[in-house]
Amino acid sequence: MINVTLPDGSIKEFESGTTVLEVAKSISEGLARNVISAKYNGTTVETKTSLTTDGSLVLFTWRDDEGKKAFWHSTSHVMAQAIQELYPGAKLTIGPAIENGFYYDVDFGEHKVSENDFKKIEDKMLEIARGKHEFVMREVSKQDALDFYKKENNPFKVELIENLQDGDITFCDHDTFTDLCRGGHIPNTGIIKAVKLMNIAGAYWRGDEHNPQLTRVYGVSFPKQKELKEYLELLEEAKKRDHRKLGKELQLFTFSQKVGQGLPLWLPKGAALRERLENFLKKAQKKAGYEQVVSPHIGQKELYVTSGHYAKYGEDSFQPIKTPNEDEEFLLKPMNCPHHCEIFNSQSWSYRDLPKRFAEFGTVYRYEQSGELHGLTRVRGFTQDDAHIFCTPDQLDNEFKKVIDLVLYVFGSLGFENFTAQVSLRDPENKEKYIGEEENWVKAENAIINAAKEKDLNYVIETGEAAFYGPKLDFMVKDALGRSWQLGTIQVDYNLPERFDLTYKGSDNDLHRPVMIHRAPFGSIERFVAILLEHTGGNFPLWLMPEQAIILTLSEKYEKYSQKVLNLLENHEIRALADDRSETMGKKIREAEMNKLPYMLIVGEQEEQDGTVSVRKHGGEDLGAMKIEEFAEIINKEINSSLKPFTTEV
Amino acid sequence: MINVTLPDGSIKEFESGTTVLEVAKSISEGLARNVISAKYNGTTVETKTSLTTDGSLVLFTWRDDEGKKAFWHSTSHVMAQAIQELYPGAKLTIGPAIENGFYYDVDFGEHKVSENDFKKIEDKMLEIARGKHEFVMREVSKQDALDFYKKENNPFKVELIENLQDGDITFCDHDTFTDLCRGGHIPNTGIIKAVKLMNIAGAYWRGDEHNPQLTRVYGVSFPKQKELKEYLELLEEAKKRDHRKLGKELQLFTFSQKVGQGLPLWLPKGAALRERLENFLKKAQKKAGYEQVVSPHIGQKELYVTSGHYAKYGEDSFQPIKTPNEDEEFLLKPMNCPHHCEIFNSQSWSYRDLPKRFAEFGTVYRYEQSGELHGLTRVRGFTQDDAHIFCTPDQLDNEFKKVIDLVLYVFGSLGFENFTAQVSLRDPENKEKYIGEEENWVKAENAIINAAKEKDLNYVIETGEAAFYGPKLDFMVKDALGRSWQLGTIQVDYNLPERFDLTYKGSDNDLHRPVMIHRAPFGSIERFVAILLEHTGGNFPLWLMPEQAIILTLSEKYEKYSQKVLNLLENHEIRALADDRSETMGKKIREAEMNKLPYMLIVGEQEEQDGTVSVRKHGGEDLGAMKIEEFAEIINKEINSSLKPFTTEV
Repeated sequence: MINVTLPDGSIKEFESGTTVLEVAKSISEGLARNVISAKYNGTTVETKTSLTTDGSLVLFTWRDDEGKKAFWHSTSHVMAQAIQELYPGAKLTIGPAIENGFYYDVDFGEHKVSENDFKKIEDKMLEIARGKHEFVMREVSKQDALDFYKKENNPFKVELIENLQDGDITFCDHDTFTDLCRGGHIPNTGIIKAVKLMNIAGAYWRGDEHNPQLTRVYGVSFPKQKELKEYLELLEEAKKRDHRKLGKELQLFTFSQKVGQGLPLWLPKGAALRERLENFLKKAQKKAGYEQVVSPHIGQKELYVTSGHYAKYGEDSFQPIKTPNEDEEFLLKPMNCPHHCEIFNSQSWSYRDLPKRFAEFGTVYRYEQSGELHGLTRVRGFTQDDAHIFCTPDQLDNEFKKVIDLVLYVFGSLGFENFTAQVSLRDPENKEKYIGEEENWVKAENAIINAAKEKDLNYVIETGEAAFYGPKLDFMVKDALGRSWQLGTIQVDYNLPERFDLTYKGSDNDLHRPVMIHRAPFGSIERFVAILLEHTGGNFPLWLMPEQAIILTLSEKYEKYSQKVLNLLENHEIRALADDRSETMGKKIREAEMNKLPYMLIVGEQEEQDGTVSVRKHGGEDLGAMKIEEFAEIINKEINSSLKPFTTEV
Repeated sequence: MINVTLPDGSIKEFESGTTVLEVAKSISEGLARNVISAKYNGTTVETKTSLTTDGSLVLFTWRDDEGKKAFWHSTSHVMAQAIQELYPGAKLTIGPAIENGFYYDVDFGEHKVSENDFKKIEDKMLEIARGKHEFVMREVSKQDALDFYKKENNPFKVELIENLQDGDITFCDHDTFTDLCRGGHIPNTGIIKAVKLMNIAGAYWRGDEHNPQLTRVYGVSFPKQKELKEYLELLEEAKKRDHRKLGKELQLFTFSQKVGQGLPLWLPKGAALRERLENFLKKAQKKAGYEQVVSPHIGQKELYVTSGHYAKYGEDSFQPIKTPNEDEEFLLKPMNCPHHCEIFNSQSWSYRDLPKRFAEFGTVYRYEQSGELHGLTRVRGFTQDDAHIFCTPDQLDNEFKKVIDLVLYVFGSLGFENFTAQVSLRDPENKEKYIGEEENWVKAENAIINAAKEKDLNYVIETGEAAFYGPKLDFMVKDALGRSWQLGTIQVDYNLPERFDLTYKGSDNDLHRPVMIHRAPFGSIERFVAILLEHTGGNFPLWLMPEQAIILTLSEKYEKYSQKVLNLLENHEIRALADDRSETMGKKIREAEMNKLPYMLIVGEQEEQDGTVSVRKHGGEDLGAMKIEEFAEIINKEINSSLKPFTTEV
């Protein structure tokens, strides 16, 4: 008999040799129908795997990431079989599951394969799937494995096997097909109901450009046709909302090869958007007791040696800036904290002065390989909505909660309703990776967990994910397409106050060490704007829109009236522009829709006579004719409903 | 007979050999009494110099810079004589006039001289001066000159003479004293009525640390005792207003050795001040049709090779930033213009879209030797209130005038009433120093001169002072202490549009080259704040003050009422703070005065009962008790009188 521990902590006894599927059945028939993969003692197993030792079992369905991984890994076997049947002599290499589907790298030999052949391959895959073939793992000796692939004339698999240990080699069979494989499959091919090959790319064998080039075929599969359809629609929507595309269309930002990759140039509309975001946060931060500071974008190398950043990032980042004649070296700042520590250090403090909360929209520079750069989400220079709170250990709990209030206020005002928090703690097995003292780490980790609990956050604890200088709380936000983004971070730091010898005079008249909190609700303005663009598809909350309304004249006759309306709108602090061109109203509306203008104000003879505008919302809703004052009220109501003043309960 | 041309263009005939003084007498007796120096055909001459050729004569009095130079140069002879009489064996080296006075570098030999000896030297100088000794120039042969100083045992003068050509050596005698000298003296020592030695410093012979160290004695002199007194008061006032001192006292900014010299850290009050200055200018610029953009603080080296900045500044500035693994090099941006050119280049433009006016508070970095750094006026990183206007050649005149309107608005709003403009043109003798085409330079120079005339500026033309890429107009502002500062610059640039291949489509459908204007009304925020601090002594215009009012409680009993007043002030958007400490009212007022608080609101029993505050202005004026609403009105009135909305006549 063996003892199997389930995720809820319960322990069940089974005969040794019981399969995963049988354990699932013992829990419920429904679970047994849906389970497609599992982990036993942390190792991926299959539903037909026999359990012969005590252990912990986690069962996965299609809804779980691990379930999807098994599903897509299994589908890659099916695609491999289809390819071999359709293209005799094609040589398989490796074919893993990836984030959204799977791929297989194939040497097609003399065959030319293009996206035109996808339909043929997909049909063959579905034909195989319908056979409900089981995936059967078996151990093979190194010699047998080598013989098998030598016979198949496949030097790639031979090379892979040569690097494996005898006794550690398994094959997986299904239908007529056999592949070198470590396991992790779904019960049978029958549950693969929908497949779609996505695209084809070149890839060098083992990623080395000196090796032969292979053809990488990407695909995805689902247990239901409907799910494939939804997935493709989501992809289509994501493509439309790609922030690089929208950023260009809405004239928010651009890149220049001459200025350099990963260094965005903000165009007027984008710069105004940034400024609005900054002013919004500044206002809330002022209420929360923050003070703005300004620090330079460089610092002496010594500053970052003191902070420890140079030891951590120095060699992999932008290199030191030398100067003529003098022995000084400077670094582009990768973080604002050393500067803020020096600002704190510029005067002496009493416990009565704390907490000090120094905030700065500080632009920092970190080197990324050019291949890693991506629009605004992965750049080489970005502006953090940074702040550092210097407080007494007694104030830490409260300050942490106040920061959470601020972050939640930011998310609420910008329409992110769906988020979780991730509490990153030390890896207790690798304590030498972290700077700082044991006692301080324990205090800080407890403060974060307490605050997360008290603020009723939906949080998970990730052990080993802490920064090297302290534990942290990150907010993961789900966007309108259901994708998760890391936004907003709060980090406790007991380390920099030591390194910069920060002190305050306590009520006992002795000098004490303050605690430091790093925090950034947006994370970075660049990344945040990118995510907001993809979340809203460019239809930002009204208070943030570059332009809130556009006046569309029915003909040039009304240009004068349109200017008058524009002035009135300006008096009401409504951002508007006028389209007085001699184009058709249809064309003007289409362009205004494309430019995401929230309100279109149509003016013609009737409107001029009555002193009104005919209001049409983005998307088409007709609100009828009204006076400017009425329209201003609509705007203000809409803004006030999403943008409330910041308050904190702490 | 010779013809002498006077500054008003009139030509007078004199007998050859007529002295400068005689020419002055022929103009007016008053002038003759006051003239102390002159230039003939651009060369400095003395009042007793005989004129023997045709030429242009300019006469100088004490009011002219050239007059002061002669006065102080002559006084250095008198000091040299006094030193030689008081310290036998002291060896003279060189002793020029400088900006505010003169100095003489002396090898005092075995004598020890300190500031305690100043009185003795000054007395001796005045004694000599009262002798009304004339300064008499005479030519000497090189051999005679060498013999003279060899006899005097003065190796320094011998070394100087050895480097001179025979026939080019003159001595100047007065009283019993003789000095090697090129000339440029006042008529006689008698007009030196007041002398003051300022300080003593070490100086190496010829500035080379391998040479013997000399003692540099600084002094200043005046034709009236009253003028010396005023000068010393001014110096005292300037010391009090030193922006480095005030910046520290008012907690505006600080420097950190760890961050690096010349890299200011702005403290909360300073950062708020900066922000208010920026918002003030942003608002005016918005009205003037500017659009804000944001660009990174680095760019690829190639960008500055394209712009020409690398060739011009590269070796003397911060060196290129290298990156790991990749072949890219970046530079800290010394200017924002290349980035703005690339922003302009990111889309295509029609003549109807122009002018485009891109503005950015762009922080730039330029290396300065550590010895050159000074507070906020000479730094290594500073934020320009930069903008670049891209316009058609036809628009240049108008745009230039609009910029002048903006600059004048800025000066007016900040209390600078007294300024002149300097139009910097090419040096026609050194055209190869400048980038750009002949025709374009002529056009640009004319546009600037026209605008300066039309805007009725008090301007001077400085030939040879243009930037290498174009002519410019700089504003020189006189501060409250009468010192001149260069603030605000407007520069035409035909060069960068060529280098970046900027184009727009004209009405003829062909591509044309736009003209570019660089402009910065403040120049840089750092320098501007420094000058404003020294100009106002920290008493900024009310709209700019970090805090506009402070509530002073008579005792702790009124803390609650003081909080209420604070909230009311906040509702009126008045920046205020409360001093609720249990200190005496006298101490609270003294500190508020020191911190330059414009208004002190005293609250006690009577005020709480009546719901009022007793208002005391900075400096002591008592405005009596009043309601908060009344006080708010006073504040708003004061702000509105100095801060009007921007308008342009163009």
